[in-house]
Amino acid sequence: MSINLVILAAGKGTRMKSDSAKVLHKVAGAPLLIHAMKAGTSLEPQNIVIVAGHEADAVSAAALAYDESAQIVLQTEQKGTGHAVLCTKDALQGATGDLLVLYGDTPFISPETLDTMRSARARFDVVVLGFEAADPARYGRLVMDGNTLERIVEFKDASDEERDISFCNSGVILCSTAHMFELLAQVTNDNAGEEYYLTDIIGLARAAGLSATAVACSEAETMGVNSRTDLAAAEAAFQARARADALEAGVTLTAPETVFFAHDTYIGPDTIIEPNVIFGPEVTIENGAHIRAFSHLEGAHVSRGAVVGPYARLRPGAELSENVHVGNFVEIKNATLAEGAKANHLTYIGDATIGEGTNIGAGTITCNYDGVFKHHTHIGARAFIGSNTMLIAPVSVGDEAMTATGAIVNKDVPDGALAISRIPQDNKLNLARKLFDTLRAKKARQQNEDE
Amino acid sequence: MSINLVILAAGKGTRMKSDSAKVLHKVAGAPLLIHAMKAGTSLEPQNIVIVAGHEADAVSAAALAYDESAQIVLQTEQKGTGHAVLCTKDALQGATGDLLVLYGDTPFISPETLDTMRSARARFDVVVLGFEAADPARYGRLVMDGNTLERIVEFKDASDEERDISFCNSGVILCSTAHMFELLAQVTNDNAGEEYYLTDIIGLARAAGLSATAVACSEAETMGVNSRTDLAAAEAAFQARARADALEAGVTLTAPETVFFAHDTYIGPDTIIEPNVIFGPEVTIENGAHIRAFSHLEGAHVSRGAVVGPYARLRPGAELSENVHVGNFVEIKNATLAEGAKANHLTYIGDATIGEGTNIGAGTITCNYDGVFKHHTHIGARAFIGSNTMLIAPVSVGDEAMTATGAIVNKDVPDGALAISRIPQDNKLNLARKLFDTLRAKKARQQNEDE
Amino acid sequence: MSINLVILAAGKGTRMKSDSAKVLHKVAGAPLLIHAMKAGTSLEPQNIVIVAGHEADAVSAAALAYDESAQIVLQTEQKGTGHAVLCTKDALQGATGDLLVLYGDTPFISPETLDTMRSARARFDVVVLGFEAADPARYGRLVMDGNTLERIVEFKDASDEERDISFCNSGVILCSTAHMFELLAQVTNDNAGEEYYLTDIIGLARAAGLSATAVACSEAETMGVNSRTDLAAAEAAFQARARADALEAGVTLTAPETVFFAHDTYIGPDTIIEPNVIFGPEVTIENGAHIRAFSHLEGAHVSRGAVVGPYARLRPGAELSENVHVGNFVEIKNATLAEGAKANHLTYIGDATIGEGTNIGAGTITCNYDGVFKHHTHIGARAFIGSNTMLIAPVSVGDEAMTATGAIVNKDVPDGALAISRIPQDNKLNLARKLFDTLRAKKARQQNEDE
Repeated sequence: MSINLVILAAGKGTRMKSDSAKVLHKVAGAPLLIHAMKAGTSLEPQNIVIVAGHEADAVSAAALAYDESAQIVLQTEQKGTGHAVLCTKDALQGATGDLLVLYGDTPFISPETLDTMRSARARFDVVVLGFEAADPARYGRLVMDGNTLERIVEFKDASDEERDISFCNSGVILCSTAHMFELLAQVTNDNAGEEYYLTDIIGLARAAGLSATAVACSEAETMGVNSRTDLAAAEAAFQARARADALEAGVTLTAPETVFFAHDTYIGPDTIIEPNVIFGPEVTIENGAHIRAFSHLEGAHVSRGAVVGPYARLRPGAELSENVHVGNFVEIKNATLAEGAKANHLTYIGDATIGEGTNIGAGTITCNYDGVFKHHTHIGARAFIGSNTMLIAPVSVGDEAMTATGAIVNKDVPDGALAISRIPQDNKLNLARKLFDTLRAKKARQQNEDE
Repeated sequence: MSINLVILAAGKGTRMKSDSAKVLHKVAGAPLLIHAMKAGTSLEPQNIVIVAGHEADAVSAAALAYDESAQIVLQTEQKGTGHAVLCTKDALQGATGDLLVLYGDTPFISPETLDTMRSARARFDVVVLGFEAADPARYGRLVMDGNTLERIVEFKDASDEERDISFCNSGVILCSTAHMFELLAQVTNDNAGEEYYLTDIIGLARAAGLSATAVACSEAETMGVNSRTDLAAAEAAFQARARADALEAGVTLTAPETVFFAHDTYIGPDTIIEPNVIFGPEVTIENGAHIRAFSHLEGAHVSRGAVVGPYARLRPGAELSENVHVGNFVEIKNATLAEGAKANHLTYIGDATIGEGTNIGAGTITCNYDGVFKHHTHIGARAFIGSNTMLIAPVSVGDEAMTATGAIVNKDVPDGALAISRIPQDNKLNLARKLFDTLRAKKARQQNEDE
Repeated sequence: MSINLVILAAGKGTRMKSDSAKVLHKVAGAPLLIHAMKAGTSLEPQNIVIVAGHEADAVSAAALAYDESAQIVLQTEQKGTGHAVLCTKDALQGATGDLLVLYGDTPFISPETLDTMRSARARFDVVVLGFEAADPARYGRLVMDGNTLERIVEFKDASDEERDISFCNSGVILCSTAHMFELLAQVTNDNAGEEYYLTDIIGLARAAGLSATAVACSEAETMGVNSRTDLAAAEAAFQARARADALEAGVTLTAPETVFFAHDTYIGPDTIIEPNVIFGPEVTIENGAHIRAFSHLEGAHVSRGAVVGPYARLRPGAELSENVHVGNFVEIKNATLAEGAKANHLTYIGDATIGEGTNIGAGTITCNYDGVFKHHTHIGARAFIGSNTMLIAPVSVGDEAMTATGAIVNKDVPDGALAISRIPQDNKLNLARKLFDTLRAKKARQQNEDE
């Protein structure tokens, strides 16, 4: 059965106290919306429709950046979840199969849970996603009769008996696209908020003789985000799971609570991650690498046997081959370091390729920016870049070449050559003592004047 | 009613195992004493009297640095809280109005609580601050009859019935200055410790026909510090509250438990604070700024749209205007960066002004110190400072000026000019190979000799 | 009574998902095995025998690095703990006195606990180490009759009454060497795993009329490591204890949960450790030092009054005398800084001695590596090293000498002299504007072409 995916992402999220749309706030380096899209697209939907409202342009841009096939429809007025889904009717004109409604502020519904819902759809017309609530007070209750979902009761309308039910409504719903729009057409806004509630289609479905059920997921999956406190709690929940998964996969985390993963971090087994390491999006770490303390990695690939940090910053495009060492106060951006290359201290390598076995001295900088353009630096294999070398890109240093300490390299260095640009040291005898004496005398005068 | 504020700060705090006075140990970047002074001065007291003893000079200096109107009196012998307050009698000679006793090792009594005490004083002669203790065992019990405080009973003297009371004495007390000294004059030291207890004035007050009451605050407010473990617990309590407040105010804290605030940190809404950020005293962050991971800020102001870090250190006097970028391994001290200025890598900027839109290349250093004096560097707008430029202050670089990579700038650079100091690069062909060969041969010889 | 120490360290630790032997995974900077050896050697054993199996060479190397007198015996097949101890029979041929069995994956048995076992041996032939289990389910139960250990019952063989026992077997055992091997000779492998269990010697001992007892330690001491999750839990347990001990000893830990100690870290009282500080092995911090945030120390000694960090990295051989300051983005390796020396910004000091009161400017680098050899830098007392000075080792700078900003120093600088190597600054008027114009025009052309 083909699926049409609808994600509700129009809300302002007033309690976020933010100019950004709520669904664009990030957990594990990705907007909440993208978490929902990632889960929903695991079902390989025929259509993806995002209902945007507040900050719709930014929401649209984020959605399209993740999946360019997504359609964006606008809900210009906040008239409830039922109305939001109705807004997708034109976009889904002629679409067949099922329609799944997810929420852009609910990032943790798992693909496995959505699969369970799809399986249940083989036997029921409407499938709702429920969860056993530890504290059900504010949620709508799912009134079941065996596997059949009889109705959904809001807390305020519930009898005492119904209030004892702890199986609650997540809001996620799956039914045929045709049924969805037929039922929504009948939903009214006869309620205090004058809103059209998606939930109401359950009662209408049952009244129309359709079957309904609810499948259960963990309460953690249904965690929604309405405030910065919720956002921090969602981040914490993500990280707790990611850390446990990494340990289980054979990664040493010396202090798991101090390591932060992105939604897509991959760490191979038998790696060691020391305390206080942060992974931004798009990082892969191969087996047996060692990420030392206080390191920060984004968009980087680290190969077997490589050692990163402490205090290393790998930015997007950092490619570290086997046994590369990147040390303290070193920044690598859009640069490839071949096997065994080393950059151990106080260095900036940007827009560069570094050959096998090359050693980059402390204080080396690739001067990749001329104020307008970025340029590339190439360094060959087994080269030795002296401390404080300035590589003015575009420039190339050959295999087994050297640069002298403090060299300013603005023309290519042939293989095996030594580049030098240095004025000989001159020792001016006794001049330091004279300078110190002059400065101290001046200070003494000033202090006398101050008194 | 005017208030005289007395803060007891004479204790040695033996369990701190410290050469410093207990009240000078810090929570959230401020000495415990200053937290108490901050709370007490919210009542705008007529007189502030600090009772110092252990390390009195340092205590006095800290108190006066916070409020130069504070009077310091010495309690040379440790004869109890009653004696300590009596030591203020001369300092408060002729003072009218009320007297409030706070404790220099009890940092969290809130201004709101003190206001509540003051309100209660309109109806009672003596007002004591109490709290509901989760585990009352070691505290004095407040025996109430309705709103009237009948007496304070120490645990060891309490009957079984009294021991069941969980409303306990914080030690904070408010009454008229005249009553305070009249009552204290009657307190005796007939007890095991031969101390004069401030608490005893309640019984004496009641016996003299004065009315007394107790108002309640949370137990957290009454948290005292007697050991480094307590100090860490107080810090943790402060941080937990500060983090919750920041989230509530619309600040994203990706990992709240890794962000440390000072007592006076201000963060505007819709800012993002990544993990592992530390705020020292006197930091203000405007709305919409972004503080990246591993940053450390003290005495700094960060404007809208500015991005700080990762691994940025802002020291006192760092002023970042809108959309400034300060990147990794960059230190800014006593320097103003105008709108859109950027210093992204491995840079030290101290005692400087940087103009609008100026780009500071990697490795740039303002050489502000000559061994005796500090000097100022001025850089104009839309300038381009090449990598590894050394700016030997005092020096000025004009608008739209440039410095070449590695320039050592010790005289002013006019607007639009390019400053350069560079010896041309010389490529010595094959010399690197020869040097490598020589070094490796030497090493081989050494290894042969070692065998 | 002399002791022979046997440590079982042959296991593969499949659940670790590691190529390394389980006992070589580290807690607090030391392999699990070394923790066990450290505890066991507190008894000053006559012989230390390590039973290795999986990755025996690496296990052997680690054991010998800690104690070169250790003997390594191989257990080539995994036939149970009893078999493992039997493997030591030849190594202990002729050994007298007692035999203590410890486990290489159980790092926290304390010397005090082992002492208690030894005391109990004065009255009993066999002493087992037990603990009160919070959840005894999977442990063997110690069936006691008064002080006498009657037998050890595995859970699966236990009666309901025996299952109610919460006093459980840690596996640690002490008896005479002679009894150990006599009893082990009688142990059979009549069980599902076809293994020889060390535990079985208790039953055999009692049947042979020997007396047995069990002494108790805390459950925390018996914590074993079988997975990365266990390893992280062991690390956390170690750190929690180390932090509490440091606070108790009079160390301020602003945020104890963010400070990581090694197994041998020593911190004197009245020191301040800010958040996010990591101690690797072999660090000693004297009283009154101040370690600021984000610092990383290994193999370093920090004296009274010294200030380290924020963002300082001290590597092995860093010796900081009194009142030394090492600041942000500074790395110190194998270098001694005499009293009052300062290196405050963006500096690498490796293989060096720095004299008293000397100031090292920002950006200074000791160029200690020529691609093959490491060389030494010496700087005298009260010297002033200008910013971005490159010290090409081996080289020496005298007392009260100076180096000019950007100096490249490759020959010795006499006392009181100023070393300079600088080409005068040339201001090329209007050239910056022309360069900007050219670059911007080029960019505009490119953008036109792209459209």
